[in-house]
Amino acid sequence: MPIDWSARAVGQSQRLHPYVPGKPIEMLLVEKGLSKAIKLASNENPHGPAPSAIAVLKQAAESVHRYPDGDAGDLKQALARKHKISTENIFIGNGSNEVLELMIRTFAGNGDEVIYSERGFIVYALAATAAGAAGVAVPEADGLTHDLHAMVASVTSRTKVICIANPNNPTGTLHDASAIQDFLDALPRGLVVILDEAYYEFVADKIEDSINALQHPGLIICRTFSKAYGLAGLRVGYAVGDAEILGLVNRFREPFNVNLLAQKAAIAALDDTAWVQKTVAKCKAGRQRLETALEEWGVLGGKSFGNFVLLRHQEAAFVLQKLEDQGIIPRPLAPYCMPDYLRITVGTAEENNRLLAALSSILGQAADVA
Amino acid sequence: MPIDWSARAVGQSQRLHPYVPGKPIEMLLVEKGLSKAIKLASNENPHGPAPSAIAVLKQAAESVHRYPDGDAGDLKQALARKHKISTENIFIGNGSNEVLELMIRTFAGNGDEVIYSERGFIVYALAATAAGAAGVAVPEADGLTHDLHAMVASVTSRTKVICIANPNNPTGTLHDASAIQDFLDALPRGLVVILDEAYYEFVADKIEDSINALQHPGLIICRTFSKAYGLAGLRVGYAVGDAEILGLVNRFREPFNVNLLAQKAAIAALDDTAWVQKTVAKCKAGRQRLETALEEWGVLGGKSFGNFVLLRHQEAAFVLQKLEDQGIIPRPLAPYCMPDYLRITVGTAEENNRLLAALSSILGQAADVA
Repeated sequence: MPIDWSARAVGQSQRLHPYVPGKPIEMLLVEKGLSKAIKLASNENPHGPAPSAIAVLKQAAESVHRYPDGDAGDLKQALARKHKISTENIFIGNGSNEVLELMIRTFAGNGDEVIYSERGFIVYALAATAAGAAGVAVPEADGLTHDLHAMVASVTSRTKVICIANPNNPTGTLHDASAIQDFLDALPRGLVVILDEAYYEFVADKIEDSINALQHPGLIICRTFSKAYGLAGLRVGYAVGDAEILGLVNRFREPFNVNLLAQKAAIAALDDTAWVQKTVAKCKAGRQRLETALEEWGVLGGKSFGNFVLLRHQEAAFVLQKLEDQGIIPRPLAPYCMPDYLRITVGTAEENNRLLAALSSILGQAADVA
Repeated sequence: MPIDWSARAVGQSQRLHPYVPGKPIEMLLVEKGLSKAIKLASNENPHGPAPSAIAVLKQAAESVHRYPDGDAGDLKQALARKHKISTENIFIGNGSNEVLELMIRTFAGNGDEVIYSERGFIVYALAATAAGAAGVAVPEADGLTHDLHAMVASVTSRTKVICIANPNNPTGTLHDASAIQDFLDALPRGLVVILDEAYYEFVADKIEDSINALQHPGLIICRTFSKAYGLAGLRVGYAVGDAEILGLVNRFREPFNVNLLAQKAAIAALDDTAWVQKTVAKCKAGRQRLETALEEWGVLGGKSFGNFVLLRHQEAAFVLQKLEDQGIIPRPLAPYCMPDYLRITVGTAEENNRLLAALSSILGQAADVA
């Protein structure tokens, strides 16, 4: 008789469902028999990594037989200088995904609760479940914005961690620093609060720098090199917060969690502020152009503060299929219970042209279908 | 009053102690005021990565703004071809360390037991503790070899996972395939058995290929690109075994756990069999030379089947300090309760010369001290 391995795994394995990533370009090419496609599904930086990061990667390629610095000491020092904080207030992970997972695992287990928004980044729910904790999804205010009052009201004696993203992915909404501080002030002491700022660089000129502006003993701010910094493929994210909290999280870290090339490229990219500012400016100009067109066509799903726009259409599945037919990969938001939305990453000027041309013809057809 | 974060973290955090990696070269240079040092502490491949892997890294550096393939599809296919198995029998991790961690987390939680050797790789104990399970360390037979009978006898109704390494790190001992098969046959059905073969390539000509030779429903074989393949800095390891078991483990995997450059370099290194064989041959010749000298000097700690040798000396701490004074970093084995042992990685011919010259003078002094 075969062994029922599923019954032998820990209980929470039954409640875990794998994350569905953006469709890879290669997969679309095969599916549709195309020779070229563009991916606007994963909020990558379409302008590529900083040239200085590329140069460092080429230099360091010959030393990858050595283990990385497990403590990522040089990268921590570079971040400490940038943020004017101490290295003991920094934790580095294999993408901010790992930072989120380890934070939640360290503070929430069986019988504990982790609070997040119903339309917050799906990894909060996955990480809570993987840790054996109960995830508590709080509905959004007016469809898209975190309902900070409702999140505070959801706290119970079993709540250990609360996660918010600002700007939020996938909805693109933004709260200013005073709204976040009011939220923090309303929370009981002793909660770990994860403020996920993966898209911070796109609003750095709009809101106060949370690392210095916000006050809460359990506040942990997460940032990433995967978006504005253009290093998604290397996997490096970080957290800033209380040294005792991060020291506890560090106990759960694998000895060499962040790879050698990622550490070196992140330091180079961090130093290249002019390059980051330039690509962020290009992204914002592209976002403005896309949002203006979507609004004209009556399909703008909401104002976005990230490097992506939201398209809303009652035939979103049809629009998705037609875009893919033309070699353009957006991200369907059905996993976020937003079946009439597509999230579309702002591309290069050429990619945005191609997207708008495609959408223009598809939306006429979609109107006929509807 | 400050918040006691430690009391708010999950219970197992109190029992977790960070892994102590080999001392980095840069740290020794600063400590000793030296301009040059060699690291023989982490069993890296001293001959560097395969040239084909270096070339691929340089090519791919410009595409690291893209997320990696979360499923590592191309690498799985390359491994499936090599081992003549199906891709569904392969799981890929951020180093074999992550593979070990996720395997243990998937099957062992609070109230469960994980069995390993007292002198097995320390990550088994760390991963069991991090998962909230109880680690059961079984004493070694005659000091260095896994006591397979005692390990079988330690199984209880609470045992979920049992880990053995072959060859073992840090003791370098080897069991042949028939001994491992006898061990597997003696275990109850339904246990997950992790056979950690991080050093397999160094014994590939000595023992049958476990992937095809061994039979047990719960057997999961782990291998790595960090040792013979020379890619320690990139973090890539893999597991081979039952598809249902690996499917459950996959639920706990982070969406993009293995970075883009690691996947590409691993495929290139895997194809470069001539290069791997050449460096393995050099390593074995170097090991023979080092072991012959250690034996002559009466300090051989045991025959090793890995890319390292064992030095045993009652003044091991003195020998360690003197080697470091001369810019040579071995690995003290105090964390394995082997305070009179040093583990020394086989280096390049030049590094081995330098090591032997240093040891020759130090052992004379150590005799005076003792």
